[in-house]
Amino acid sequence: MDAEEFRRFGHEVIDWIADYLANVRDYRILPKIAPGDLVKKLPASGPEQGEPMEAILRDFRGLILPASTHWNHPRFCGYFSITGSAEGVLAEALAAALNMNGMLWQSSPAGTELEQVTLDWLRQWLGLKPGWFGLILDTASVGALHAMAAAREAADPGARAGQTPLPLTVYASEQAHSSIEKAAVTAGIAQTHVRKIPVDAEFQMIPEELERVIERDAAEGLRPFFVAATAGTTSVASIDPIGPIGEIAARYGLWLHVDAAYGGSAAVAEEFRFVLDGVETAHSLVVSPQKWLFTPMDCSVFYTRRREVLRRAFTLAPEYLRTDEDSRAVNFMDYCLPLGRRFRALKLWFLMRRLGREGVAELIRNHVSWAKWLARQMKEDGRFEIVAPVRLSLVCFRYRGSDEQNRRLFKAVNDSGDVFLSHNVLNGRFVIRCAIGNAKTTKEDVETTWRRIREAAESLPARG
Amino acid sequence: MDAEEFRRFGHEVIDWIADYLANVRDYRILPKIAPGDLVKKLPASGPEQGEPMEAILRDFRGLILPASTHWNHPRFCGYFSITGSAEGVLAEALAAALNMNGMLWQSSPAGTELEQVTLDWLRQWLGLKPGWFGLILDTASVGALHAMAAAREAADPGARAGQTPLPLTVYASEQAHSSIEKAAVTAGIAQTHVRKIPVDAEFQMIPEELERVIERDAAEGLRPFFVAATAGTTSVASIDPIGPIGEIAARYGLWLHVDAAYGGSAAVAEEFRFVLDGVETAHSLVVSPQKWLFTPMDCSVFYTRRREVLRRAFTLAPEYLRTDEDSRAVNFMDYCLPLGRRFRALKLWFLMRRLGREGVAELIRNHVSWAKWLARQMKEDGRFEIVAPVRLSLVCFRYRGSDEQNRRLFKAVNDSGDVFLSHNVLNGRFVIRCAIGNAKTTKEDVETTWRRIREAAESLPARG
Repeated sequence: MDAEEFRRFGHEVIDWIADYLANVRDYRILPKIAPGDLVKKLPASGPEQGEPMEAILRDFRGLILPASTHWNHPRFCGYFSITGSAEGVLAEALAAALNMNGMLWQSSPAGTELEQVTLDWLRQWLGLKPGWFGLILDTASVGALHAMAAAREAADPGARAGQTPLPLTVYASEQAHSSIEKAAVTAGIAQTHVRKIPVDAEFQMIPEELERVIERDAAEGLRPFFVAATAGTTSVASIDPIGPIGEIAARYGLWLHVDAAYGGSAAVAEEFRFVLDGVETAHSLVVSPQKWLFTPMDCSVFYTRRREVLRRAFTLAPEYLRTDEDSRAVNFMDYCLPLGRRFRALKLWFLMRRLGREGVAELIRNHVSWAKWLARQMKEDGRFEIVAPVRLSLVCFRYRGSDEQNRRLFKAVNDSGDVFLSHNVLNGRFVIRCAIGNAKTTKEDVETTWRRIREAAESLPARG
Repeated sequence: MDAEEFRRFGHEVIDWIADYLANVRDYRILPKIAPGDLVKKLPASGPEQGEPMEAILRDFRGLILPASTHWNHPRFCGYFSITGSAEGVLAEALAAALNMNGMLWQSSPAGTELEQVTLDWLRQWLGLKPGWFGLILDTASVGALHAMAAAREAADPGARAGQTPLPLTVYASEQAHSSIEKAAVTAGIAQTHVRKIPVDAEFQMIPEELERVIERDAAEGLRPFFVAATAGTTSVASIDPIGPIGEIAARYGLWLHVDAAYGGSAAVAEEFRFVLDGVETAHSLVVSPQKWLFTPMDCSVFYTRRREVLRRAFTLAPEYLRTDEDSRAVNFMDYCLPLGRRFRALKLWFLMRRLGREGVAELIRNHVSWAKWLARQMKEDGRFEIVAPVRLSLVCFRYRGSDEQNRRLFKAVNDSGDVFLSHNVLNGRFVIRCAIGNAKTTKEDVETTWRRIREAAESLPARG
């Protein structure tokens, strides 16, 4: 494609995106299609000869869009709602054009240093003390794996040298994200050695239970080495008591990892700094700007206060081969598994500059206040119960009725195409989740969501 | 940013990219900066208030660009040269705007099914038989980890259930990429259990040596479980004999992983299908379109013929909880570590359609023929030696002189800013690598590269 062709189709794509971002509410959030529908519409083999851009963009609009779930719709309230922000879109286009690989400082000085700078800005915005070393990974799941690899390097360096590995055990709350368990299994920790610690009535890990299980495991000759606390669980946005967990971790020699993929961003607003209370006792921390800091996927920040341990876990060069280059420039490849590292810092930089700290804080404040508003409406309505405290921007609720009625209500809302909620099972009961977090969401969107929920409740058959 | 603002700045960004892609040869490939230079120019803290897009784009041009290594320059011949193609740039902008997360079929039917379709197209283009299940990961390093996790699931399922893990051993050639060893360490395999198998004069793994080491390890009570063959090593683009290695793997019960991150793409042209000869004996395969298939980073395809084993390695749900949904729709989260999965298939689809199989094959043919041309010039010149057979698009050479002279020549070429080469150490000697692979590279670019190399040779002080 020559420059003129790129210019022409580039402008067409930009105009389409401008319209899409402005009119995304016109799309059904969940498309009306069945598995295989798109496959059937696409050729069974790729083309022998190249095709014109017109045909490709026509099929993008005619085939891909109708099969898309619109995560960027301001009433997408499932899982956690995220944002493909306009700033982020422009940054991603630029990053793709530069196409730099930030494995070494030399291979991408701009990528390497902008990553250092933006992550230090973010550290300050989160209220973290100096001393946290950060890098950007694709997901919090991969971040959890990096935390675990570093923790093992600290706890059992002999295993790497071929000694019989210690029987390591991992701790996280019953409500922790499955990525912790998945990271453990991937790292070669026995799945049966991942302990799910009970939670209190507000779904927060009970430190005394953690301590009890650690002591039992240690007495049985196992080696407790890793505990994950969550600041904003996926299930109910509960916040584990990081400080007390950190004290126990310190007492028994465990690495404390804080999974704040969703909740961490709230700390940008001073009044929500409590989500990271106690984080100074942690060894690693994940905060994902792709979740609630309005950057497009993928962008998950991994911080650690044990930079040297992380490096030991991921550098293959023996110590005596190290040069002093690391003190002059960071080579991020020495701190992570992926060698290829695309220029993800660019979109974070665009976003942080375009919104400023106050702009981010205002969005977060709005989201939390609207979530609390929605929860209040539900309580006042009388037909709904709120099943977990609404501390951030997630409302977990039930219609006061059977699981079957809740499932029907849930399906009716999602079938409208106008609002998307997700679900969970909590204490054996079906629970509906409404997550607010898209940068374009307005109070009116939340009111529409509430109206759809009420309409769905009204259309339920009599309680049976 | 509202629609009009996005349109305005979007058009500006597209125009800038159009000029950049057309004029990238005007940039120095390696910027003239020292570590910390960019950090010093950026504020120590992020802004409190949001800033206008004008300021951000001005700083992108004024601060980020001068600190950038230009991987998209057609004479970037270091590592492996890659391409931020125009088609890929447009697809990345669209993917960021849709911002869908392809963890489940429902969460992204278009993302899920387009990934299935493009990877089946690619399978056919590579000449692979049906039966390979593919998914897109960010890098070949993460692909190697997935291969190893699946291989362990096959070899030692008891470890996951808390039984004492078997003393697993891994095999790869001396020339294999460090990502294999890194994946092993990350997966919890002892680093001392990663065997580097000797290579022949053409840097290909010697199957008899592999067998000898496997037998020795097995006799010592270790459990050989994983062997990686490379089709296009990073060091010299050598191609391990996959078929003979696969026979040994089958005989001793090892998982065979083929790392064809770079070389695999060559198989799109029939005359280079030999790079994957014997791949039908493999259990998993990585081919990275971000390397030599002209998609922007990141896009690395992981294929396996053992789909069920991969799923067992990465699904947490116990078998008795499985529904038959998997037979109706793929939920990619069940097959990999990352939960968040951005819409990477879109750029691969754009690229495959825009170029067609013949378009891709023609680029690859050109690159290989130009690499062979360059090697011929060097041989005829007499002052250079070619240190490894040029089968694909990488030329590894030395100036016939001391290591010091080679280092000087290398530095002179890279300091020109006009050509970028990388280096390696082979059999204890400093070796220079020239990798051809950017879609915009022309024969003239290769001629310029050759001229710069000769000029650098001529400027060397007399041999000492």
